[in-house]
Amino acid sequence: MNILILGGDGFIGSHVVDKVVGLGHTVTVFDRFSYRVSKHLEHLRGKLNFVSGEFANRDVLKHVLENQDIVYHFICTTNPASSWNDPFIEVEQNLKDSIQFFELASECGVRKIIFPSSGGTIYGPQSGRIAEDTLPQPFSPYGITKLATEHFLNYFREHANIASDIYRIGNAYGPRQPVNNPQGVIALWMKHILEGSEIQVYGDRQTLRDYIYVEDIAQLMTHSLHDTDSSETYNLGTGIGVSILDLLNVFIDTIDQPFQYKVHPRRSFDNTSVILDSSRLMAFFSGFKFQSLKEKIIDTWCYVKENYTPPQKP
Amino acid sequence: MNILILGGDGFIGSHVVDKVVGLGHTVTVFDRFSYRVSKHLEHLRGKLNFVSGEFANRDVLKHVLENQDIVYHFICTTNPASSWNDPFIEVEQNLKDSIQFFELASECGVRKIIFPSSGGTIYGPQSGRIAEDTLPQPFSPYGITKLATEHFLNYFREHANIASDIYRIGNAYGPRQPVNNPQGVIALWMKHILEGSEIQVYGDRQTLRDYIYVEDIAQLMTHSLHDTDSSETYNLGTGIGVSILDLLNVFIDTIDQPFQYKVHPRRSFDNTSVILDSSRLMAFFSGFKFQSLKEKIIDTWCYVKENYTPPQKP
Repeated sequence: MNILILGGDGFIGSHVVDKVVGLGHTVTVFDRFSYRVSKHLEHLRGKLNFVSGEFANRDVLKHVLENQDIVYHFICTTNPASSWNDPFIEVEQNLKDSIQFFELASECGVRKIIFPSSGGTIYGPQSGRIAEDTLPQPFSPYGITKLATEHFLNYFREHANIASDIYRIGNAYGPRQPVNNPQGVIALWMKHILEGSEIQVYGDRQTLRDYIYVEDIAQLMTHSLHDTDSSETYNLGTGIGVSILDLLNVFIDTIDQPFQYKVHPRRSFDNTSVILDSSRLMAFFSGFKFQSLKEKIIDTWCYVKENYTPPQKP
Repeated sequence: MNILILGGDGFIGSHVVDKVVGLGHTVTVFDRFSYRVSKHLEHLRGKLNFVSGEFANRDVLKHVLENQDIVYHFICTTNPASSWNDPFIEVEQNLKDSIQFFELASECGVRKIIFPSSGGTIYGPQSGRIAEDTLPQPFSPYGITKLATEHFLNYFREHANIASDIYRIGNAYGPRQPVNNPQGVIALWMKHILEGSEIQVYGDRQTLRDYIYVEDIAQLMTHSLHDTDSSETYNLGTGIGVSILDLLNVFIDTIDQPFQYKVHPRRSFDNTSVILDSSRLMAFFSGFKFQSLKEKIIDTWCYVKENYTPPQKP
């Protein structure tokens, strides 16, 4: 099949590209490539099509959507923390541009869209393991917009008969996660360690997160390729809650460099507990073993150390 | 208290104005007043402040928000049918402008916002009576945007400590509902009868709606004035499901003018069944009796006949 991966040179997107190319599909990656060089996909040069462009540009996007069967949509300009003080940017950049993309995909005959939603922000305050039919109570602009985007995919299913799978992903971590302008606490802490600055730990033993390794995410998201006509919403997490203090202990045990840290109360834009019940998806992956957090934090740390370049001063 | 009613010269808004003025509050109505004349509130001239302006205009809106305690927000440029083929207009006009309003209200120290959401579109496909904790599955741009607006009110509660009550209203009908460019099936049918054109009936005995008279809505929405600090989401309907064919029979029995009609299958943007369980709200209104549909359709028809002016040709 012809598979387009929007934002395929990013963190999760590039791991999905690795998996999908490995399955033998014809892959196009659409992203902003500076100087025609990809950040994470040079090892696949010759095995896929690179298209550089702006997601908001209607004509460019329409051109790249032609003849595509399935599109993964990893383009997102924000994160929960950055959007906390700027609700407009979510609507202006992420929601509007996604709706435009869904419209163009419908016009171009795309059969299915795969959308990474946010298990960490759309459910809001909950306790215990969260299943997909839990009442979402998002309260950050990031989570609100992710959920509205899910709903617009429902609309395009009804209105334009385009299928869609939605993955509500837990706390992703792993190689290629941006360390400057970081999205996740693991990348953020590693950045501070590299820079010699103090780690700020927000939360306590009740602040639970479902950390999932990016390669596991990528592999599980290939599930959507088996059926181009079905539509479903899946949680995508390990189902294991790790407290922020336990995560700190993993860092203390594994990071081969001394660092300082300071523990603070939970912030208002963070949920207390996010543990995803992913049994709907895992029913298709009998015997699947999630990667060990401790081992993969070591691997991630090695990657980050090797690839870190301090932000350039203007 | 100082109470601002945005869109207070509209259908539901103007009935709320009647009730709130009757309770002795200091009321300001913000709407587009052509030639400084209100459509529905001339009987209250001298008893309230009229401010004419555009909701999207930040400076005008900020000026009118100063010193207000509570704001009802009835401004909405679309309806479920009009938005079915134009998802952008919902985001561009309703969602973005509402977020701007919430921001300005926070800055101006408004204590509470009251928002009319849509019981008919946010829940999506459901059966039986729907309570507020039912998983919403909106699939029309209108319903998706109403739900996202609810969620942004959650955000402003957390982010700016502004309270909000949300009313998920059933199928409103009654005097002052627009007959040209109509929003509800009752107003639409009356328009067709007046124009001598055939009524198009979409649905069957399973197409159930919760029709609620506008004066009941207005009275029940004054509940929010009792506590300026609390926030809650309320269904606002009668809890009685009336099929589209039963509604047709009410018209046949009560309308004193012959008319033609044709029955079609349900349209894709209509839900099968919408019956709201409003017991959360009605717990505050012991002994409340909803108006009779048959009697109030007669009253509405009398009002519509007296006030109808055909649309002017350009």
